[in-house]
Order: sequence, then structure tokens, then C-alpha cells
Amino acid sequence: MRWRGGVLEVVDQRRLPARRVIRRCRRVEEVAEAIETLQVRGAPAIGIAAAYGVVLGVRPELGRRMHGHVAFRRQLDAAIARLGRTRPTAVNLRWALDRMRRVVTAHPGGGVRRWRQRLLAEARAIHAEDRRRCAAIGAAGAALLTSGDTVMTHCNTGGLATGGLGTAFAVFATAHAQRKHIHVIACEARPVWQGARLTMWELQQYGIPATLICDTAAASLMARRPIAAVIVGADRIAANGDTANKIGTYGLALLARAHRIPFYVAAPTSTIDLATPSGAAIPIEERPPAEVTRPYGLPIAPRSAHALNPAFDVTPRALISGIITEHGVLKPPYAEKLRRLKANPPHLAPLLPPREERLSEVGVVG
Amino acid sequence: MRWRGGVLEVVDQRRLPARRVIRRCRRVEEVAEAIETLQVRGAPAIGIAAAYGVVLGVRPELGRRMHGHVAFRRQLDAAIARLGRTRPTAVNLRWALDRMRRVVTAHPGGGVRRWRQRLLAEARAIHAEDRRRCAAIGAAGAALLTSGDTVMTHCNTGGLATGGLGTAFAVFATAHAQRKHIHVIACEARPVWQGARLTMWELQQYGIPATLICDTAAASLMARRPIAAVIVGADRIAANGDTANKIGTYGLALLARAHRIPFYVAAPTSTIDLATPSGAAIPIEERPPAEVTRPYGLPIAPRSAHALNPAFDVTPRALISGIITEHGVLKPPYAEKLRRLKANPPHLAPLLPPREERLSEVGVVG
Repeated sequence: MRWRGGVLEVVDQRRLPARRVIRRCRRVEEVAEAIETLQVRGAPAIGIAAAYGVVLGVRPELGRRMHGHVAFRRQLDAAIARLGRTRPTAVNLRWALDRMRRVVTAHPGGGVRRWRQRLLAEARAIHAEDRRRCAAIGAAGAALLTSGDTVMTHCNTGGLATGGLGTAFAVFATAHAQRKHIHVIACEARPVWQGARLTMWELQQYGIPATLICDTAAASLMARRPIAAVIVGADRIAANGDTANKIGTYGLALLARAHRIPFYVAAPTSTIDLATPSGAAIPIEERPPAEVTRPYGLPIAPRSAHALNPAFDVTPRALISGIITEHGVLKPPYAEKLRRLKANPPHLAPLLPPREERLSEVGVVG
Repeated sequence: MRWRGGVLEVVDQRRLPARRVIRRCRRVEEVAEAIETLQVRGAPAIGIAAAYGVVLGVRPELGRRMHGHVAFRRQLDAAIARLGRTRPTAVNLRWALDRMRRVVTAHPGGGVRRWRQRLLAEARAIHAEDRRRCAAIGAAGAALLTSGDTVMTHCNTGGLATGGLGTAFAVFATAHAQRKHIHVIACEARPVWQGARLTMWELQQYGIPATLICDTAAASLMARRPIAAVIVGADRIAANGDTANKIGTYGLALLARAHRIPFYVAAPTSTIDLATPSGAAIPIEERPPAEVTRPYGLPIAPRSAHALNPAFDVTPRALISGIITEHGVLKPPYAEKLRRLKANPPHLAPLLPPREERLSEVGVVG
């Protein structure tokens, strides 16, 4: 993702890995559609894209008009409302939009031009902070792995899903950069195959040894091979530690528990939502049944087949061995630790591993 | 599946539900390829097809030649060897081939023409018996369900996978015919989507209310909806009750246990293999990685991605609430009951529900 010349450039993730198509979003509606149609996906990436989307939603020329600030506020509200409707589960979206709104509400006398400058600065800050958070998550999580470990992951949590190295993916990339010999088993992540299409592609970019499996093969591999840990991302972490993530995560957590494999969630603190008391209160997005019955147009079910397509599920905190954040690994019980982390976030040192910089040039990151 | 005019006709299951293509097998090699490439699949159906394949592997004109019976025996051995190599996990294949071989070894002085008549009669008997077994499995299993039940299943276990109504599918079809209101949740069954393509299609043929889900959504649905039972088929039941079935079954059994949902295996006694002491001794077929990375040619992973594709997994007997056979529902412990059932099979009454007869005309069954 890149902001250049007043345009938000995103890689259309639906086309990867076959083609690398850049979409240039010039209007808030284009950003909203990019999020809704999964061109941009991954909780942190959605938050960043939405922040830039707000910038695209307010027009600078309003400054020259009468009552410009009234129209500006109206545009701001409309942009935030439109973007907020795109996807219900990932809380980073709401978190980023709240930050953008506060830029204006905290400086009510700012004036239209100044507001817009501040909005862009805030979007850039959200983007840059996520980069630092990813690196810190990677460092914290890599300490959990030792050379020779095989780890399993689900969906995509790398540079495509975030503003930096990733969340769970950052753990793998950092361990690999530390010359630990790790092997990643990527679950394909039906219905949209982010594991097969995106994670396998990013693992190749980093040269990390990896094996792709169908989601159905996860239990079999856990029974037949030593797996050191399952590490996944998160779309929302409730106040008690219950975690919403890509559909299939809850099942993997149950399978990991049955095989005594540690199960970790890796996520920046922006994913923690203290306003949601538990997983039961997290809204679960239902996506079009055609993603199930006709993936990429392939007719795998009878024409009139009824299908359900929940995009996320909730993993109860009791199944989570630890939450890897940019401020270290939280161990259960989570509620009080999550509350303290949000109330009083520690200082985060700037940190960019050289590998990430290099990859951001070829478009893997950023 | 149908034997007509010395030709084995099978529906090419790879093309369903989009197209209904009949393959006509005239040589043993064609039958072997049909099994290897999943044109014919499902443990009981594989056994039936292999039995007819043996008939195609021996040539009747040998009777007119010198040393005809030596050549006949050589052809018989070659046919059985070729068919036996097609798929390693389903034991019904070996069971059917053993029966075919005994037709000749039990009548060593039979003569070539007589042998071939007997082989065809035996293949027809295997086919007809499976039909009766399916009906009896359906009756035994349907007694476990009550009106209003939602049941979950995996892969395809219906008329396409057997010589009759099916195994797990026969339970659903029979309960439905008994006017019990049941709803079937079909897991898609990656990599080859037998659940989406075949089970959803067969459920539609019978008018049974059904919902298709991605394999990843199974745990989520178990947590959110009351599910009365998970019922699956089997490719091999070891002497201790451990059961090999389509990849993903073991995971579903673990998820069912975690949600306190009864987990049943439905299979004819031909699937029981007393020569295999436990699941650890069941060979697990590894199929081409392209089924994972390029399903139906759709490139969902980077070109050089490494993938594993185990076709089956093993569910330990401790996770199985009951085994639904043509002689009733076995409850744990299984070992002694399985041994007795194989040593002394009870008489099986001929029984064909009218519904099956009707559907066999449109090609759903048979």
C-alpha cells in the first residue's frame, strides 16, 4: 500500500499470485469498494487503507467556499460512515476511523486546509506506526521459536495484510532473518485462499521453507508431525481475550489443543477492543455464498445449492496460549493485561529490519 | 455404475455436477485408470468397479486355445495386480479382488468359460449385495435421527460412492423417506470437493434440505447451531475400530468431541479389515500436489509452491460414538464386535426402498 501524489495505490490481492495489479484509488468510494471486495484485506491493512480513504473523502477546494468547514465536516462524516460500513468484524477499521475523526474534533477551529493536512499526517502516522508494530511483534514472537521448528499458520498475515512485515508472518520472517531454520505449514484458507495465494507467495519472497496444505489436512499433519506452534493473526481481540479471526481459526485452535500444540495469536494492540466484552459480542460478517459455491468462477456445487459463508469465527481465550503484541507476549489470564496495555501503552522504539526495507521496494511490503 | 453388454458404464464423477458424462470401460486398464483418476471413487464403489474390472481383464476366447487355463490364470493375476495397485487405502478394493480370485481358486478345474461366467456372477453379486447393505445401513442409522435434527457430513457417501443408497448418505435418505425433517450440512471436502460437487447434488436429487459450507466453517457452525450428529463414511476400519476416511474426517471428529456432538461412521462390513490391527497400520495415499495448488486447473498458489496432499486420515476409535453397519449400530468397545461380525455375519434380508428404485432409473444410484 502506498500514498503517492494524492492517490492511494494498493495491490489487488484477489489477483495474486498470478498477477500483480496495482489499483489507484482517487475517491473514498474506490477505497470502500477495494475493502469490500477484498482487494485490500487483513485487519491492519484495512485500517490503514480506511485512514487514507478518509483523506480522499474530503475535498481541499472547500477552503475557498463559504461555510467550507460545515461542508468539510459533512464530507468527513460521510466518508467515515461509508468506510465504516465496509466490513464489520475487524476492529482496526473502526479504530483507525476514530483516530481520523479525532484529528478534526480535537482541533475544531483548525480550518479546512489545515484539517486536511492533519488528516493526511494522521493516516501516514497510522501507516508508519503499523510498520513499527509489525517489527516489534516479529521480534517478540521469534523468541518463542527455535531452529528446527515447524509452525502452522492460517490465512495471510504478512506485508499484504498490514503496513509492515505482518503479524504472525512477522514472527516467521524475523525468526528466519535470525537464521533459525523454521518450516511453515500454510493452510490454504478457503473460501478465498489467502493462505495458498498470499502467504505461500510471501513466504517464497522471503525464502522461508514452506508447505501448503488443504485446510482439511491440518489435523492429520498435527497427528503425524511434530509441530512447535500454531500462530495466527486476529481481526478483533475482545476485552476478555476471545479472538475473532479468519474462518477456520477456531477449528485450528481446537485441533492444536487436542494435540498439545501451543496456539498463539499475533496482533498489534490496535486489534484489541475493550468495548467488546467477549467473543459473543463480536459481529461476524457473512459473505456472498458464491465464494463457497463458485470460487473464482469455478462451479463446484449445483447451481441452486444453498451455502453459508461466515468470514470469521471466534476462538475462546481458553484455547489461546499467548497473544503476541508489539509490547511482548501476553500470557493468560488476559483481561487485566489487555486493559492495562490499552490504557497505558509503553513507548515503542522505531525499528525496521533491513530485509523489510528491501522488500518494500519490490512491493511485498508497504 | 452399470454392467451392460460386456461393458462397465460409470458416471465420470470428476465432471459432476456440471456435466453427467458416462465412461464405457471395455478393458481392465480403463477401469484401473477410472479408479486412479477418481472417475469412480468411494470405497464400496471402488470394490464393485474393480470386480467388474477383473471380468474385463480375462478374455473368453482363451478357452479355444491350448493351455488356455494357464493363460487365463496369468491374465487373472495381472488384472488383480493392476487393479490392486490403483488406490492403497480403501480396503473394499482388496476385499473385492480377494473374492474374485477365490472364484477361480475354489474351482480349480472349472475351465475358462465357466470361470469367466462365475467371475461375472461374483461381480454382480458384490454389486447387488452392496445395494442391500446400503439399504440396511440406512435403516439402522435413520433410527438414530429424530425429526428436526441437523446433521453434518463430509465428502460423498451416496449412490455415486456405493452400489446403492450410500453409507452415511443412506442414513439421511432413509430418515428423509421416513418423513423425518432433517437438514444436512455438507462440508465441501477439499481438495476434490466431493461434498460440494457430489453430496450437494445427490441431496438435491432426493429433495433433502441441505447447506454447503467450506471445511473451515465446520467448527464455527458446531459452536453456533445445535447439530445432532456428524455421520461420515469409511475407507477402512481397522480391527480395533480406528477408521480411515477422507482427509478432514479426523479433524471433524475432534471438533465434534469438543462440542459433545456424537460422531458416527457408517460403512458396510466389507470395509472392516481385521488384518489391520489399528489405524497406524493403514497406508495413507498421497495424491498429486496439483489437487491442492491447481484445483480443476485454477492456479491458487505460486507456481513452485510445495504442497502435501494426503487423501485420507485416521480417526482413532476413541472419537467414534458408533459404527453404523448393515447389521446394526456397533457401540464401543469395537474390537470383539468387529471380529464377531466378520467371523459370523448374520443373514441380510433383501430390502430395497422404493425411492432408490426410482432414482436408479435417472442414474443417481447404480
